[in-house]
Amino acid sequence: MAGALLFSSRLDDPVAWSNALKTEMPGLDVRVSPDLGDPADIETALVWKAPPGELASLPNLKLITNLGAGVDPILADTTIPPHIPVARLGDAVMAQMMSQFVTFAVLRHYRGIAQYERQQRESRWEYVLPRASYEVPVGVMGIGMLGGAAARMLAGIGFPVAGWGRSQRTIEGVETFYGAAGLAPFLARTEILVCLLPLTRETRHIVNRDVLYQLPRGAKLINCGRGGTVDEVALLAALKDGQIAEATLDVFETEPLPADHPFWAMEQVLVVPHIGSIAVPEVAARDVIENIRRLRTGQSLLNIVDRARGY
Amino acid sequence: MAGALLFSSRLDDPVAWSNALKTEMPGLDVRVSPDLGDPADIETALVWKAPPGELASLPNLKLITNLGAGVDPILADTTIPPHIPVARLGDAVMAQMMSQFVTFAVLRHYRGIAQYERQQRESRWEYVLPRASYEVPVGVMGIGMLGGAAARMLAGIGFPVAGWGRSQRTIEGVETFYGAAGLAPFLARTEILVCLLPLTRETRHIVNRDVLYQLPRGAKLINCGRGGTVDEVALLAALKDGQIAEATLDVFETEPLPADHPFWAMEQVLVVPHIGSIAVPEVAARDVIENIRRLRTGQSLLNIVDRARGY
Repeated sequence: MAGALLFSSRLDDPVAWSNALKTEMPGLDVRVSPDLGDPADIETALVWKAPPGELASLPNLKLITNLGAGVDPILADTTIPPHIPVARLGDAVMAQMMSQFVTFAVLRHYRGIAQYERQQRESRWEYVLPRASYEVPVGVMGIGMLGGAAARMLAGIGFPVAGWGRSQRTIEGVETFYGAAGLAPFLARTEILVCLLPLTRETRHIVNRDVLYQLPRGAKLINCGRGGTVDEVALLAALKDGQIAEATLDVFETEPLPADHPFWAMEQVLVVPHIGSIAVPEVAARDVIENIRRLRTGQSLLNIVDRARGY
Repeated sequence: MAGALLFSSRLDDPVAWSNALKTEMPGLDVRVSPDLGDPADIETALVWKAPPGELASLPNLKLITNLGAGVDPILADTTIPPHIPVARLGDAVMAQMMSQFVTFAVLRHYRGIAQYERQQRESRWEYVLPRASYEVPVGVMGIGMLGGAAARMLAGIGFPVAGWGRSQRTIEGVETFYGAAGLAPFLARTEILVCLLPLTRETRHIVNRDVLYQLPRGAKLINCGRGGTVDEVALLAALKDGQIAEATLDVFETEPLPADHPFWAMEQVLVVPHIGSIAVPEVAARDVIENIRRLRTGQSLLNIVDRARGY
């Protein structure tokens, strides 16, 4: 039967997604990878890191939706015909969840919680006078859908927030910098750096040794965007040297993070397994189905990725 | 010289406070305990847990200002003549700092960070699908200056928040419950309980076994108010039993928390040394000096504690 949707993810729950999709579009034929049935039936695909070649094997595929905001895994799969449009998910709930995770990490670094954790391990009560948050400038690299929302939440709870992006943007309550010329002044005023950049040719290893050392000494780094945007060798050296005092890392150059990677054992690094934010099926299914309706009625599709730009 | 201010705290920085007070009132004679000089000179006192008897020894004392929001240590000092008015500090920065700490603790519990910390110790990458925050009801006990601000911040970043207080109150975006009759329904809908109550005769051990077991099983507790409001024996039992899955404790029945207290070693408890919020000298000095001016010109004083009510 034509018009089927292929669901292909090793991380997301196929039952929850099937139910959510069928709530929005009763009768939708959902096939869960690797049980494709007749590949010719499949019209659209909803995927997170589908096995290479799987999408290329679908002769009637008309739309690929990425189960998340970062589409670098799809664009890296050169077997996918480039004329098939790729949409990315990114709704208000996903942006809020990411903003909350970033807010947690910023507050944890700002309040020096890692030091209290050390003291707790030693049953040691030691008062450290906190600073007011208006003295702690936070900088967000990448101020698109997710980074912009995070910057707004942080400003809303009392931090001086700046954002840096590829091109000029205005966010209420947030100082913005852009382009190559804006990077140095942005870094110089940033004590806690949040990285929420997409992974593209331009952003690979954008947070390198030079960038890390343009931050004030003892700065803290949070990466919730893509592992490949940070040069991990440079970050390790900066952490050992004290230039970067602490880090919260949700994404890595290699995921899962290998068991022998030094990040795991570093007291000043909080490692979390790429859980900053997810697409919640009950919410995100609405956008998936809206695009299927648009596809079938010839309307313009939403949230389509610019392959040249990379996001 | 009459009109001196006595600063008496073993925790706060006398130099920072002297400078801040003199910025607001140049020429103010600040005496730092235990160097009182002539006790008859002292007109006002700014104190945190002054040694018992110290304030009673000042014959011309006209106003005591508490270096924080919780005045239970002053009211417990029976040597202080009860006709001397007691003011408490509690400005917008203090409320924001407390709200940020509570927000950190709520986000940490909501996102199950303790589990990721365990996984990190084992170099183990294990994905756990997060829930959306709209599914996680937070309840704030004590919705005065600090609790009300915390409830508003939590609602603002996306939690369903309810507040419980002694008497009826309205907070925009927050469902409110009050009095004895309101406690059971408030607890039944609360998955993360934040305690920001003052310590009074009525609130001592208000969070007892009965209250803890009216929360849904696996609830999480954050106490940033006063240690004495929670029955620690009941909390320990509820933590061991799993009724309370996790806790963040900033305040304790005995402070500093004794080195042999079981809380220190509990993986599901985050212990911090009463650092939820402080009075920032540069900000709070304005309120201290404003009251001195009012005292001297016979105007009504601000933020005066009701001794009968206890806060």
